[in-house]
This record gives sequence, C-alpha cells and structure tokens, in this order.
Amino acid sequence: MREVSQPATEAIRMVEVLRALGDPVRLEIVRRLAAAGEVSCNTIGGELDVHQTTMSHHYRVLREAGVTWTTVKGRTRLVRLRRDDLDTLFPGLLDSVLNGARHGRAAAGG
Amino acid sequence: MREVSQPATEAIRMVEVLRALGDPVRLEIVRRLAAAGEVSCNTIGGELDVHQTTMSHHYRVLREAGVTWTTVKGRTRLVRLRRDDLDTLFPGLLDSVLNGARHGRAAAGG
Repeated sequence: MREVSQPATEAIRMVEVLRALGDPVRLEIVRRLAAAGEVSCNTIGGELDVHQTTMSHHYRVLREAGVTWTTVKGRTRLVRLRRDDLDTLFPGLLDSVLNGARHGRAAAGG
Repeated sequence: MREVSQPATEAIRMVEVLRALGDPVRLEIVRRLAAAGEVSCNTIGGELDVHQTTMSHHYRVLREAGVTWTTVKGRTRLVRLRRDDLDTLFPGLLDSVLNGARHGRAAAGG
C-alpha cells in the first residue's frame, strides 16, 4: 500500500477544513461521501462529469485538510469522510454543512 | 449613507460562506465580531496588525459572502455578523465554527 499524505487527527485545523469545504465541487464530493460511505476515487468524478485531473486536485485538498481519509489498495484509492475526527474536533460542523448543502441545493432547485 | 454590495438573505450561499471563513484572518475577524457585536472596520485591523488594504479585502469577502453586514455612516464603516441570517439559513454552522475556532486557538497555544 502506497502512502498518501494526510494529517493526524490532532493536526487537523478548522481553517483548512473550511477552506477545503468552500468550493462547490468539493462540497458535493463531501455530500456524496456522507451518503455513500467509502467509495473509489473514480466513482464521483464520473457522476459529476468533472475531469479526473481536477478531481484529483479536489481529493488532495480534502485529504490534506483532514476532511477525508484515503486508503490505497493496488490501483484503487478508496476515500471516506473523517467523520469521527471532525465530529470530535469541531462538534456540529459537518452536520450543519451537510444540512446546509441540502438547503442550498433545494433553494437552487437542483 | 453610501451603498455597499451585500447579498439579500435568500441570496446567501453556504459554499461562499465556507470559502469566506476558510482564511485565518477572516476567521479571527468573525470571532472578534461575535464577541464585540458591531465595530468600526478600523478597530480589528489595528488589533491584528494587518494592513488596512488587506483588511479591506477581507471585509469585502466576508460582506459579499453574506457573513457580515456593513453600515456606512459618514467616513465610518460599521461591521457586524449576520448572525440571524446565518443561523436561519445554516443552523448550527456559525456556532460550530466559533466553538471550533476557540478549540483551534487553544490547541495552538494562542
């Protein structure tokens, strides 16, 4: 298994988490991960019609901020939300973001 | 009173709010506004030792995202958090960010 750089729990900083979440594609990735659990990196990019290079960038930002955890298995990267870490460090943040994202989509009619 | 561009409540988008909060100086401004209520634009910049031009940029990002409300009185700009709007649109978001910001400062020893 190759290593990917991702912060230890105590190294996660809220400002980096907020920065990572402050992008429409990354927010949508987070919303889908919350619903799906662990998925292969390729899954969501295809659904969103976002180019693989762009998706790799977004996944890296999320991972380095501590929002997601990536496990490399052979040629596959599995990604999941660091829900426990985030809920422990910043109680209520992820839930309010996920609820707010639903609200935003509803308001936008999408 | 001059006009400043700031979105109506229904035009506030969570992704823009998160983007605005995802910066250490802006997060600190928000934290101080939460504690102080309405302040003159010049107050916080002096306390943080951030140049006025940079502060103006940060205030504009916060205002255009709908995080803050600016009232212009003569030469003075008064800034306050749009707490009611944000709490209504994204319940729990601002509270979790403010609590998390305190956590982050404590963890950093600052």
